[in-house]
Amino acid sequence: MALLVQKFGGTSVGTIERIKAIANKIQEFKAQGHDLVVVVSAMSGETNRLAELAHQMQDAPTPRELDVILSTGEQVTVALLAMALNQCKCPARSYTGGQVSIRTDSQHNNARIESVDTRVIREELDAGRVVVIAGFQGVDQDGNITTLGRGGSDTTAVALAAALEADECQIYTDVGGVYTADPRVVESARRLDSITFDEMLEMASLGSKVLQIRAVEFAGKYDVALSVRHSFEKTMGTLITMEQQGEMERATVSSIAFNRYEAKLIVKGIPDIPGVASRVLKPISKANIEVDMIVQNVADDKTTDFTFTVHRNDFQKAMSVIGQSSDEIGVHEVEGDNQISKVSIVGVGMRSRAGVASRMFETLAQAGINIQIISTSEIKISVVIAEKYLELAVRTLHSAFELDKELVLDGA
Amino acid sequence: MALLVQKFGGTSVGTIERIKAIANKIQEFKAQGHDLVVVVSAMSGETNRLAELAHQMQDAPTPRELDVILSTGEQVTVALLAMALNQCKCPARSYTGGQVSIRTDSQHNNARIESVDTRVIREELDAGRVVVIAGFQGVDQDGNITTLGRGGSDTTAVALAAALEADECQIYTDVGGVYTADPRVVESARRLDSITFDEMLEMASLGSKVLQIRAVEFAGKYDVALSVRHSFEKTMGTLITMEQQGEMERATVSSIAFNRYEAKLIVKGIPDIPGVASRVLKPISKANIEVDMIVQNVADDKTTDFTFTVHRNDFQKAMSVIGQSSDEIGVHEVEGDNQISKVSIVGVGMRSRAGVASRMFETLAQAGINIQIISTSEIKISVVIAEKYLELAVRTLHSAFELDKELVLDGA
Repeated sequence: MALLVQKFGGTSVGTIERIKAIANKIQEFKAQGHDLVVVVSAMSGETNRLAELAHQMQDAPTPRELDVILSTGEQVTVALLAMALNQCKCPARSYTGGQVSIRTDSQHNNARIESVDTRVIREELDAGRVVVIAGFQGVDQDGNITTLGRGGSDTTAVALAAALEADECQIYTDVGGVYTADPRVVESARRLDSITFDEMLEMASLGSKVLQIRAVEFAGKYDVALSVRHSFEKTMGTLITMEQQGEMERATVSSIAFNRYEAKLIVKGIPDIPGVASRVLKPISKANIEVDMIVQNVADDKTTDFTFTVHRNDFQKAMSVIGQSSDEIGVHEVEGDNQISKVSIVGVGMRSRAGVASRMFETLAQAGINIQIISTSEIKISVVIAEKYLELAVRTLHSAFELDKELVLDGA
Repeated sequence: MALLVQKFGGTSVGTIERIKAIANKIQEFKAQGHDLVVVVSAMSGETNRLAELAHQMQDAPTPRELDVILSTGEQVTVALLAMALNQCKCPARSYTGGQVSIRTDSQHNNARIESVDTRVIREELDAGRVVVIAGFQGVDQDGNITTLGRGGSDTTAVALAAALEADECQIYTDVGGVYTADPRVVESARRLDSITFDEMLEMASLGSKVLQIRAVEFAGKYDVALSVRHSFEKTMGTLITMEQQGEMERATVSSIAFNRYEAKLIVKGIPDIPGVASRVLKPISKANIEVDMIVQNVADDKTTDFTFTVHRNDFQKAMSVIGQSSDEIGVHEVEGDNQISKVSIVGVGMRSRAGVASRMFETLAQAGINIQIISTSEIKISVVIAEKYLELAVRTLHSAFELDKELVLDGA
């Protein structure tokens, strides 16, 4: 008998049949005596369909109105799941974000949860019902509908688990856990039994779509027991933990992550004086383009080369922004390359062990892969390479760090 | 400078292009200095699509959950219309029924409006914005989402007009007004400049889809100035008035209405004793089948024939209900016919003039149309005939009562 918050994503509720399968799964948990709060996303493809309608209507949809239309996607799913549960004699009721007072700030399209009123949810649980709650959405203090940004349903689930002091927050996906690398790229990739919050944060920020980064931050902050599980199979999943499990035997590197769709811009021959980096990046940030890696190289005595990477979707926009402000910045020449990818190795173990970086670079060199940019943090090392080498790099590193070998953990 | 409540139905907002056209129309009204509250339905087909999803999920969808899913249809439209208005520089904001506190009872799928809080709407109007409100929906006292039943957006518009004491409630349709008969059946049908509430009520109850009957009742009760207009053409439309306009010159009959999809059941040889009618109808009402006309004929000394009509969709169900309870009722034989239609003539003028009924029956007889059932009220006469004669009957009556002739009204 535990209080569980379970979250099912878009592909898990993508069809009528899948929603029925999810309902059966929930019913089994309920039959075991658990109290259940279930958070769901929009059926897969639905959010894109609604966004497409909005963009047909307005060049840049009013953020407030975009939230009004996008939030209907989850509202449809909660009603359907509640019906499916009622159909199999499992009493359930659906709620929108607003109906259970998921209060956010007023940053439409990317709002942050400020508070959750658990009164209605507790009443429903006390009445023996499964509470089905629309993920991804809330209301601001004036009652306007807000959404939390892509993947926001993870955050909804974690926030509810924190507010309800749930025993566990279970994120169900069609992947079933966190892997040493993307199983579609590396056949020998293994599911990890556990991973630390820090590692998970790095992986989320590296574009691993297993969990939304804000959900991981939130869970870490409020000490929510978090796990990633399989929507349709009865496998163990991955537990996200505060401390590393089975420290001694743990591999130095826990996983290989990658972002395929990167692009880089090299701004050449700019004056090597203080403030130049901000002069280059200000127009980029004004254009709402997110910058990932930033590297500055000394070229000769008076000028410098400045390189930064962006998501490939923003490449053309970034090139034209720099082009337009080249006089102002004093740019000599801009080069771009949108056929690059980023590969990263992640692991808490890296902190205390030497030689990880050199092993990574050596492995890539032996495979004939040229490294274009390097960036590091305490628990990850990222390199930018040509996209055509991406799969080769991920597989070679996965094998070099022995991630395909089963580990014997003590005490885990 | 007036405060107008304007309602646009599903076909008027059925595509992106139509919503843009509606936005342009609204903008013109706004430019004339009017304060505007706009009520919209779901895009045509959307409510059916959502209901279909619900029925795939649950044999008999939980009424509360059905409302949660159905209400998303209007929520999508209000967001899109607000975007379209913002796109053409006409400031607008969308609201769901719950957000503007349209409070209803808890009769899910068929709720009745109890109150409207106009505070938010007035604030938006004072700020110079067009307020776009989702029709067909509200919330009960516990904050559960409710819907008002098919055509409920008309009622939302009228209720808002009453609460805001608006100068006029304008119902925009792709028909453009109330006609002397369905223009698709009678080519010479004319749009009426005005019609009384009583006549409109009869027409609504006779299946004319121009206005929902509860909207007409509501408007009559709260003295709301109501009109039916064309969504895309600049025609005058029809004004619904308390009193008959231009009384002296007004034709006796104002319009011909019909219900094509009727069916009748003749319960034969039942004992002619008190209480038999209720014994027949009780199981029908228990099965949630709506009965329209009821006629009882004396057959011989001890038994009677009992005839009633239902919508054709309910015919099979009604036949099997009567069949199952035949012993209990003491039924000898049940006959059914689902190829019948109802034709009605409506007009306030009928009250004070003799000869209307005989003229109707004579006209039909001369056209060789047999009358199966007759039913009358103060301002309408309905007859049931074989469906194959429907168009002939409507056209012949339209011409016999001279509805195709333009009238000169004084003072109107």
